[in-house]
Amino acid sequence: MTTGTPAAEADAHRDTIERLREQVCALHAELPRWNLVTWTSGNVSARVPGADLMVIKPSGVSYDDLRPEHMVVCDLDGRVVEGRHKPSSDTAAHAHVYRLRADVGGVAHTHSPYATAWAARGEAIPCAITAMADEFGGDIPVGPFALIGDDAIGRGIVDTLEGHRSPAVIMRGHGVFTIGADPAAAVKAAVMCEDVARTVHIARQAGPVPRLPQEHIDALHERYRNAYGQ
Amino acid sequence: MTTGTPAAEADAHRDTIERLREQVCALHAELPRWNLVTWTSGNVSARVPGADLMVIKPSGVSYDDLRPEHMVVCDLDGRVVEGRHKPSSDTAAHAHVYRLRADVGGVAHTHSPYATAWAARGEAIPCAITAMADEFGGDIPVGPFALIGDDAIGRGIVDTLEGHRSPAVIMRGHGVFTIGADPAAAVKAAVMCEDVARTVHIARQAGPVPRLPQEHIDALHERYRNAYGQ
Amino acid sequence: MTTGTPAAEADAHRDTIERLREQVCALHAELPRWNLVTWTSGNVSARVPGADLMVIKPSGVSYDDLRPEHMVVCDLDGRVVEGRHKPSSDTAAHAHVYRLRADVGGVAHTHSPYATAWAARGEAIPCAITAMADEFGGDIPVGPFALIGDDAIGRGIVDTLEGHRSPAVIMRGHGVFTIGADPAAAVKAAVMCEDVARTVHIARQAGPVPRLPQEHIDALHERYRNAYGQ
Amino acid sequence: MTTGTPAAEADAHRDTIERLREQVCALHAELPRWNLVTWTSGNVSARVPGADLMVIKPSGVSYDDLRPEHMVVCDLDGRVVEGRHKPSSDTAAHAHVYRLRADVGGVAHTHSPYATAWAARGEAIPCAITAMADEFGGDIPVGPFALIGDDAIGRGIVDTLEGHRSPAVIMRGHGVFTIGADPAAAVKAAVMCEDVARTVHIARQAGPVPRLPQEHIDALHERYRNAYGQ
Repeated sequence: MTTGTPAAEADAHRDTIERLREQVCALHAELPRWNLVTWTSGNVSARVPGADLMVIKPSGVSYDDLRPEHMVVCDLDGRVVEGRHKPSSDTAAHAHVYRLRADVGGVAHTHSPYATAWAARGEAIPCAITAMADEFGGDIPVGPFALIGDDAIGRGIVDTLEGHRSPAVIMRGHGVFTIGADPAAAVKAAVMCEDVARTVHIARQAGPVPRLPQEHIDALHERYRNAYGQ
Repeated sequence: MTTGTPAAEADAHRDTIERLREQVCALHAELPRWNLVTWTSGNVSARVPGADLMVIKPSGVSYDDLRPEHMVVCDLDGRVVEGRHKPSSDTAAHAHVYRLRADVGGVAHTHSPYATAWAARGEAIPCAITAMADEFGGDIPVGPFALIGDDAIGRGIVDTLEGHRSPAVIMRGHGVFTIGADPAAAVKAAVMCEDVARTVHIARQAGPVPRLPQEHIDALHERYRNAYGQ
Repeated sequence: MTTGTPAAEADAHRDTIERLREQVCALHAELPRWNLVTWTSGNVSARVPGADLMVIKPSGVSYDDLRPEHMVVCDLDGRVVEGRHKPSSDTAAHAHVYRLRADVGGVAHTHSPYATAWAARGEAIPCAITAMADEFGGDIPVGPFALIGDDAIGRGIVDTLEGHRSPAVIMRGHGVFTIGADPAAAVKAAVMCEDVARTVHIARQAGPVPRLPQEHIDALHERYRNAYGQ
Repeated sequence: MTTGTPAAEADAHRDTIERLREQVCALHAELPRWNLVTWTSGNVSARVPGADLMVIKPSGVSYDDLRPEHMVVCDLDGRVVEGRHKPSSDTAAHAHVYRLRADVGGVAHTHSPYATAWAARGEAIPCAITAMADEFGGDIPVGPFALIGDDAIGRGIVDTLEGHRSPAVIMRGHGVFTIGADPAAAVKAAVMCEDVARTVHIARQAGPVPRLPQEHIDALHERYRNAYGQ
């Protein structure tokens, strides 16, 4: 799809990369705002459209201190192309998703507490409320336990989301990964995932919670995708 | 009650509409402040007194970005009369309430987590604490599941609130709708609904929670309506 | 103890009253800060030392809008002595406490959610953690259900706290009242009451929670009263 | 290791002490920010490297009012060397840890609600999620109940952490103590301890939560210590 070295690609997409550094940095502020992250956990990335590159958070940097120039440019094997910082320790997982899913332009990852509680039990979140049908189009599925550091997490994300409408997967014993056409959509899915994980958890504490009928889920999701927003 | 086209009506109520745009926009800030909404969910509207018009939030706009000029003026069939934005996807439900309930001047809608948890189970919130007797005058009832987009939700709201003192209804599998004499009262009811939904939920986690005796509920509600506030 | 009309008493304590208006107003900011109140619920008062007077929040005024000049001066029968606003609807309860407890200089009232959940079940909070032994010196007791408006709540507070070290009482089906030597101490007790109500609730969700041995409670409370702080 | 009186030692480490006053004061802001403390509870200290001294929070001072000059310099028997304020009532526990653990440069203490709920039951937090394996390398252990005021708490901390990778211990019926190579690491451990205490608590409310296999815990912890951050 592209040619030349990753560094040459980065030069050829200079303006886009600078814009994505700003956007990815700004989107990170949504994670503490919606109480999805603790200390330095969590990360967001964006694909550089038209290049085999991505822009991602540096590892272990405080959310207060994040600046656009700290964002790291990596190729889609997770190798650093530009940046004075080490990239997120989850870079390999993000990169794998971009390599296998050409439709994905953004990825987000959190250990948000309610969603991670479902992950700790390894239980999918049943689609029990209309907000969940809207955004996720069904249950939020559980992916396998996988160790960090190689393609295992990325493969688990891609394999699990295959055949689901949900842009979110809860990885067993770990936390949440979300995908989107762009990084804002991935962050929105992470925010909504925690919201519905919390509401359905609270609901079930007091009694059985029925799944919505599939035909209603289908109708809600279809409408939300086509009629909601500006 | 009024004459002429909706656009002529809007012109005839220009000052009121501008004031309501300001007020409805400002009231939306209460929804994230009290943790009732996530991302762009939730909405508030106001009837334009003396006209068959309402002022409502645009669809899918961030709470940070909402400005009075973004508020959309619709007629009471939910059709846009003034505004560069699409109105809330819940506009038809708001409009239906205004058409059938002449006493209602404001409507609010949220997916606030504790109230929506009761909605997911389809369970009314029993009137177990004095704050609930004050504001709701009894249980908060459950309305039917209804799909978004036509009068079904609005009918469910109006039918369910018929015969209850409560200005709040929790719609099965969906969330909360509240009504008031003006939009501030509807927003207050949405805030209080989540507060009591949470407290009664927490209470029941640890044992049985008795409903207050009806005579006490009646006395508290009567006093609150007549003696509370300035 | 004092002579003359309440208005003359207020004149004779002008400087103290102005100082207490400032202090009581400022202390109200602690209630939303620590998530103890919703909308306009909750209130704080201070005795005017040496006079049969108290300074209390006006009824139903937004926390954002509270200013020292809004605070209402009442006599200890709850009648307004100075103020353009109606006093809190809980004024009679505060006044009763000041009349019967000469050692009390401040009273606070909230519907804070975890403490009110214990109140909804009518269950005392067992002294299970050292922070609770420190501040409360034992269990936080439950007072009777009482309707607002006359001395019934005040009597329930005074009768229940008799024979307990706790400066907090959870009134059945209602919420929390706390007392202190001054209004800051009463507010602190309200903040700590919600904190321990939450922690002990969470603890019990997952299994039995032993009460601390009485000798340890005694030792902790004694030390806290004498050795903590500046 | 050092010679002379504590006051002479303090003079010999003047610049370090001033820097630590600033740092310890600033780190205290993290405790309310992450909802770990209520009113004036909680405290952080730092060892003065190369001296038998520590810098610690004053007792019972509001987080809003804390300034670097309020921090108290104590020797490692907990006696005040410099400072106009009384030191934290937990000073003896901090001092004991510094005396027995030469590798510890910072200590933090909170009554954070979810971790203290585990403490109230006297139950260790099982290592069920990768974030916990990363930071704690296994379960967070429970230490004995001990009264404040002498070495008992300090001994309980040191004895319990012996043989665990965890920098956090939950003291039965009390709360959390954490250690670190420096005070920032101790504060980070306190923040993460509450985060995992909450997530594992929520997870267990809805069903059994498996511990991660030991080999995965080992691999995650090893990687986190060596590969995470800048």
